[in-house]
Amino acid sequence: MTDAFFPDIERIAYEGRDSDNPLAFRWYDADRVVGDRTMAEHLRFGVCYWHSFAWDGSDIFGAGTLDRPWNPATASGAAAGMEPMAAAKSKMAAAFEFFEKLGAPFFAFHDVDIAPAGSTFRESSRNLDEMVDEAAAHMERTGTKLLWGTTNAFSHPRFMAGAATNPDPAMFRYAAAQVVSCMNATNRLGGANYVLWGGREGYETLLNTDMKREIDQLGRFMNMVVEHKYAIGFDGALLIEPKPMEPTKHQYDYDVATVYAFLQKYGLENEIKVNIEVNHATLSGHDFHHEVATAVNNGIFGSIDANAGDDRLGWDLDMFPRSVEQMTLGMLEILRGGGFTTGGLMFDTKLRRQSTDRNDLFHGHIGAMDVLARSLLAAQRLLDVGELEQCRAARYAGWNDADGAAIMNGEITLAELHEQRLADDVEPITQSGRQEYLENIVARTIERTI
Amino acid sequence: MTDAFFPDIERIAYEGRDSDNPLAFRWYDADRVVGDRTMAEHLRFGVCYWHSFAWDGSDIFGAGTLDRPWNPATASGAAAGMEPMAAAKSKMAAAFEFFEKLGAPFFAFHDVDIAPAGSTFRESSRNLDEMVDEAAAHMERTGTKLLWGTTNAFSHPRFMAGAATNPDPAMFRYAAAQVVSCMNATNRLGGANYVLWGGREGYETLLNTDMKREIDQLGRFMNMVVEHKYAIGFDGALLIEPKPMEPTKHQYDYDVATVYAFLQKYGLENEIKVNIEVNHATLSGHDFHHEVATAVNNGIFGSIDANAGDDRLGWDLDMFPRSVEQMTLGMLEILRGGGFTTGGLMFDTKLRRQSTDRNDLFHGHIGAMDVLARSLLAAQRLLDVGELEQCRAARYAGWNDADGAAIMNGEITLAELHEQRLADDVEPITQSGRQEYLENIVARTIERTI
Amino acid sequence: MTDAFFPDIERIAYEGRDSDNPLAFRWYDADRVVGDRTMAEHLRFGVCYWHSFAWDGSDIFGAGTLDRPWNPATASGAAAGMEPMAAAKSKMAAAFEFFEKLGAPFFAFHDVDIAPAGSTFRESSRNLDEMVDEAAAHMERTGTKLLWGTTNAFSHPRFMAGAATNPDPAMFRYAAAQVVSCMNATNRLGGANYVLWGGREGYETLLNTDMKREIDQLGRFMNMVVEHKYAIGFDGALLIEPKPMEPTKHQYDYDVATVYAFLQKYGLENEIKVNIEVNHATLSGHDFHHEVATAVNNGIFGSIDANAGDDRLGWDLDMFPRSVEQMTLGMLEILRGGGFTTGGLMFDTKLRRQSTDRNDLFHGHIGAMDVLARSLLAAQRLLDVGELEQCRAARYAGWNDADGAAIMNGEITLAELHEQRLADDVEPITQSGRQEYLENIVARTIERTI
Amino acid sequence: MTDAFFPDIERIAYEGRDSDNPLAFRWYDADRVVGDRTMAEHLRFGVCYWHSFAWDGSDIFGAGTLDRPWNPATASGAAAGMEPMAAAKSKMAAAFEFFEKLGAPFFAFHDVDIAPAGSTFRESSRNLDEMVDEAAAHMERTGTKLLWGTTNAFSHPRFMAGAATNPDPAMFRYAAAQVVSCMNATNRLGGANYVLWGGREGYETLLNTDMKREIDQLGRFMNMVVEHKYAIGFDGALLIEPKPMEPTKHQYDYDVATVYAFLQKYGLENEIKVNIEVNHATLSGHDFHHEVATAVNNGIFGSIDANAGDDRLGWDLDMFPRSVEQMTLGMLEILRGGGFTTGGLMFDTKLRRQSTDRNDLFHGHIGAMDVLARSLLAAQRLLDVGELEQCRAARYAGWNDADGAAIMNGEITLAELHEQRLADDVEPITQSGRQEYLENIVARTIERTI
Repeated sequence: MTDAFFPDIERIAYEGRDSDNPLAFRWYDADRVVGDRTMAEHLRFGVCYWHSFAWDGSDIFGAGTLDRPWNPATASGAAAGMEPMAAAKSKMAAAFEFFEKLGAPFFAFHDVDIAPAGSTFRESSRNLDEMVDEAAAHMERTGTKLLWGTTNAFSHPRFMAGAATNPDPAMFRYAAAQVVSCMNATNRLGGANYVLWGGREGYETLLNTDMKREIDQLGRFMNMVVEHKYAIGFDGALLIEPKPMEPTKHQYDYDVATVYAFLQKYGLENEIKVNIEVNHATLSGHDFHHEVATAVNNGIFGSIDANAGDDRLGWDLDMFPRSVEQMTLGMLEILRGGGFTTGGLMFDTKLRRQSTDRNDLFHGHIGAMDVLARSLLAAQRLLDVGELEQCRAARYAGWNDADGAAIMNGEITLAELHEQRLADDVEPITQSGRQEYLENIVARTIERTI
Repeated sequence: MTDAFFPDIERIAYEGRDSDNPLAFRWYDADRVVGDRTMAEHLRFGVCYWHSFAWDGSDIFGAGTLDRPWNPATASGAAAGMEPMAAAKSKMAAAFEFFEKLGAPFFAFHDVDIAPAGSTFRESSRNLDEMVDEAAAHMERTGTKLLWGTTNAFSHPRFMAGAATNPDPAMFRYAAAQVVSCMNATNRLGGANYVLWGGREGYETLLNTDMKREIDQLGRFMNMVVEHKYAIGFDGALLIEPKPMEPTKHQYDYDVATVYAFLQKYGLENEIKVNIEVNHATLSGHDFHHEVATAVNNGIFGSIDANAGDDRLGWDLDMFPRSVEQMTLGMLEILRGGGFTTGGLMFDTKLRRQSTDRNDLFHGHIGAMDVLARSLLAAQRLLDVGELEQCRAARYAGWNDADGAAIMNGEITLAELHEQRLADDVEPITQSGRQEYLENIVARTIERTI
Repeated sequence: MTDAFFPDIERIAYEGRDSDNPLAFRWYDADRVVGDRTMAEHLRFGVCYWHSFAWDGSDIFGAGTLDRPWNPATASGAAAGMEPMAAAKSKMAAAFEFFEKLGAPFFAFHDVDIAPAGSTFRESSRNLDEMVDEAAAHMERTGTKLLWGTTNAFSHPRFMAGAATNPDPAMFRYAAAQVVSCMNATNRLGGANYVLWGGREGYETLLNTDMKREIDQLGRFMNMVVEHKYAIGFDGALLIEPKPMEPTKHQYDYDVATVYAFLQKYGLENEIKVNIEVNHATLSGHDFHHEVATAVNNGIFGSIDANAGDDRLGWDLDMFPRSVEQMTLGMLEILRGGGFTTGGLMFDTKLRRQSTDRNDLFHGHIGAMDVLARSLLAAQRLLDVGELEQCRAARYAGWNDADGAAIMNGEITLAELHEQRLADDVEPITQSGRQEYLENIVARTIERTI
Repeated sequence: MTDAFFPDIERIAYEGRDSDNPLAFRWYDADRVVGDRTMAEHLRFGVCYWHSFAWDGSDIFGAGTLDRPWNPATASGAAAGMEPMAAAKSKMAAAFEFFEKLGAPFFAFHDVDIAPAGSTFRESSRNLDEMVDEAAAHMERTGTKLLWGTTNAFSHPRFMAGAATNPDPAMFRYAAAQVVSCMNATNRLGGANYVLWGGREGYETLLNTDMKREIDQLGRFMNMVVEHKYAIGFDGALLIEPKPMEPTKHQYDYDVATVYAFLQKYGLENEIKVNIEVNHATLSGHDFHHEVATAVNNGIFGSIDANAGDDRLGWDLDMFPRSVEQMTLGMLEILRGGGFTTGGLMFDTKLRRQSTDRNDLFHGHIGAMDVLARSLLAAQRLLDVGELEQCRAARYAGWNDADGAAIMNGEITLAELHEQRLADDVEPITQSGRQEYLENIVARTIERTI
């Protein structure tokens, strides 16, 4: 079965910067040591099942375009007309062939990506269980590990008004059942994390929405998820994935700060972390590295969906990352925060709809892995050289003396500072922020990365 | 002095819907009872000092255009060349003439709006004290009250890198001193609130910024402000004003949810509320009424800066509100939340730079007050008629029965819900969200407002 | 067949402003005379086939939700499992039942909306011909007219890289053939216009795109369309529909100005006009009324897709219009331009995905028709009262005297104006633009509309 | 005088990629041959007078921050209190010291940047003439050349409602006079271009604006400018600079396509080209390289304002360019179009307001020049290696055969293509667009640039 779907591809090798082979890595060298660990340990790359194996290239304006012989929804091969479970196994064979040839250590899935829906929940669960067995065998065979599992509680019409935040508790219950199945599956497959993306947890209009009630429901749901995690002994991390909009007009998990407000309100800030997606960050008005820094600062940094948007467009594009300049800033914040523990860099990325060849999947992922490997090297070099960190630290030096500490330690009142100032005629001196100088350091560091 | 600046304007009267007088109210009838209080009590209109009296019409591409004889920076009258304190008094006379003729019950100011900077902080403080005396006399004479005072800790170059979040503690100290002066002034004038807008509390680039440290500084500062409030016996509310960007690339008080995260983290959620600006809301990607609802839901709703942006433009325009359709939705959320306590509707609005006549100030405010009065009436009517509230409540009816309550009360686990679903073959039925139907109700209600 | 699909709906009647009947018009009174014609003649409402009858409620994140018994893709009724041509006839019966009961005088369609694709182009053409016969009979029976036909040359995978602008001439040829079929069908049904929306005429990346070549292809294609129009004696108007983005990253027909540049370059400015969509206008950074004015000013105003976007979201929402405040400004520009000739107000609108009831189609359209009827009345009143037009004209009065005319007639050179200014020491006086005053006039006029 | 302002800076030298000297070029090597000319000939760098020498660091929220001893508006040195013409000469000495030390071959100015306004136009003209003499001497001395001159007809209150598009012809006349003075000055200084940026040529609201009339005025004005160019024998190019918004709500020169529509309508498409600014491009919803390609395709490519925006912010930031990834795509389109003739890369860039040191001006420009030099090298390498061009050409190969040519030559009708398709049962085959593969080529090429 191994070579059924990508017959002309061998395992992708690291060939170094001078290679012209488009099917080789030029930067991602899994065993290379960077700082305190290997590249593979730093980056923890994962491939997603949904865009790369379940999607056929359809968009809101047109039908599927991609050559996906394992996908019975496409007409391009033997899978057309296959029985659902057989098709699911064919798709899984394709996926693991890809994971293995690419050399990505991890993958991620939604329940519905790997197992076809049955006519009842019971039947869907049976399908899932069977496919989890199948996945376990593939994982054993290939050594691929599970970065995270997640539940699709947004595609079925029953979830059109949300899952946990649905006005109808029947849908909350359905989602709860589905999450149990999928958490159990994730646990069985040794998943490092379990992710909750708020697919339709949000609203179209406040005219028909009781936002307070819905967010209270979400708070309850998340607490139940935490309880279930302990009940089943799942030792991975729970992650919420912020997104500001789409499919709903407003998504409750708008950005990292909003999620942090939610977690604190419902007593979850020590139980749940965030899975930050680059394109979701930019849609919410934030640079990716801002969102990472916000999560790190609040102790809720979990994992990354490593993709890219288009800065001229207002929807989620899930492009493959291609900017070393931008991802270096993101990797820098990740390294400043100590790097990944359970998390990793998941390619929640989709090929452009016109990239119809099966092998375009390799080109997309290889390019992205090289971009991120190079960004890691540049970020580590920024830390190693240290000028950036020193400049930044020097700017705050005044806070390290006794007077600065007195303020931060609460030893002085506003009124006392007022008195001091009344007695002081000296205007404090400003210092240049040196932004352009620092940007030049970053540019120089990226270009010198080797 | 009273009639020095707007000689052709009488006190603006309510003349009713059929009036063609552009200098009369058609909707704002201060004593009309709406629901549980009068319009004046509901709306608590305030006029701002900065845009309306201190600004000369300059923008980043050009010089002042406005006919402002009280402003020595303009060449249009007697104030040109005036000594600073005399000019400040002239400006204050103009402002109170306007407040009184407009019939707005409140005003608001920054310290630097009413008092000229001296060559030292001590001198600035003396100027402020003297102008506060002057203001107190005007307030006594006219009956105008203070909605809020606030400190300008962003215009002076010393604050180019922030005030409380400055890398240099000297600037934190300076801002602290200034806030004490201005809080004391606000207290003396019986201000209903004290507002903290994070002028330059944010960053231009993370390359030179330690965001965690800066937000910790802000947390400390806000706690000191709370302590000072109690120390001086100020019984108004403390309000943070969210804004996502501008002047800095990223402002720490991005939106209501971000501020709520901050307040919880630093133990301030019961001490500080928010002052929501319409145009700041839209710049942060949110509808105004979303931000109101978010604040109400979290118990931190304080006050409103009632202005408008331009939905095609990406900066703060501070236009006069002109959409009854949009403000009705905002007023609805305010009424749902119980209406204002200390807060009100502050016109943080500026005339377009080409609206150069002094009397344009009246046209801007009269139009805005009528828009908001009509929006209040429409919102109250929506509640009185009740169909919208009933439709919304009906949508959540399932949560009120025993099974729904069991979930929210924590009486059932995720695993139990999973078991139930496994045993249940019935697919839950979805209900129409009826958005267009509800929008028609709102449209009909607005047009029927009388 | 007539009452098969909306059994509980009678023909929607005009009941006037005081009606509480949600299934009646309160403003749209077809025979009421407004200015120089009736409301029906002014507004020329059309219902679209695609969103209202062909769409099942699916979006990029989920499956169809809508109760559409005529749609075999949905599971909600007898159509499930129908043979394609029988299903197409069922859908058409539903559509004409709706058109007639709503009382919309026009409809519009894509070829693929009304006729199923065959396995070859020949077979698709036969299907189309047969369905055109069926439509002709319905039109005859109900009196519904065709506002425009259009070709879907974007949904099939063959058009993934465009139709006329495809890198492969085979796709250009295919689209050409399809356009001939659809223009012929439109001609036969007496269509008032034929619309060309550039579905995927644009690019995803310039890396693989020769933009000059593609736009030259488009220029050739449009010239061929014009020739075909004359060849078949079609006396309707040809319209291009601008859109800035989506589905492609950049659509060549970005906005009205861009289309006007294209038309001039390829000698088409007297042959093709524009069909302006409200939501496309706002996505391109323009107010809707700006786009109308731009088209009118350049003599290329054709027709309108009357919908609305969400000003916080960056994609095409196609909501039902609900803002009288905004549509009044659009109607004003339409009236200033002399009103519609061949064009009309097409509801290229879709229900929200949660508005699942069949009758929600009525609520959406009734609300929209009332919004536009009321906007028409307000715009006409603005013209009738005349203050706005007088204020605007007065502002330009200086251009009507001899000196102004000398400039515009080319009778004076720049150097002569320079000489005059050197000799003139008088600084010209500025006049207030009075924006807020004028906005108050508009607000007052809208609220007084009866 | 030479070393008065930047005493610690020597002429910036090229030291190569391995240099750690922040005050040296690592990529910009003026005499290095790239393709068919030297780097200096390719890039034609220019420094702007306005942001770099006239601006004091003020923004809409605060006062000047920058250490600019030549600027009497700042308090930081000897210029404070200087007489206007003496201050202007001091500023010019600083500017030319900078130009020379940086080694930028060109500069650009507004009339008001170099000469103080007098109390009458005559006096302003005399000031300008005197400063032009001064500039001529500096240019002679240093070898610096003038890339372009331009008129500031937007900062003075008289231009608050536009210059050529003003409702009052007196302002049109004033602007005309000013343009004559500035064109004459530009001609005398041997300027390579004369630029017209539509400062306030646009509107705030259509309520008071007759857009058609105003654009007709602009068409007349531009025709007069062309006539004047020939009258004075100016052999530089005339350039319009597109911008979509800011300071006005809508700027008439929205983007390149809009300007091209305007030029064609008023018969100017062979007389005026465009000066494209990177940050204006992105504000108008376009990538920079899209705007370059659009201009090249229509034969109106002139020059570049080489700066950068912030993709999260909605206003003009005029940052120094720092992305090799993005500028490579722009340089590629410039090279595809044949490179600059009269145009060049003007740094219409401003330091961040916190970059207060004089020497930050060097860091900003050096970094930007290196970014652009490296982008030029990468773009040239993409052309030299040729794979990108070959892939693109191959995609369109079908258009080069007889059938493709027959279409483009107008030898076949739509009806004939329809007949052919009816007879053809073969579905055309799609080809992958290979976007990710091509993006990987670009990434590899940039990193290999040496």
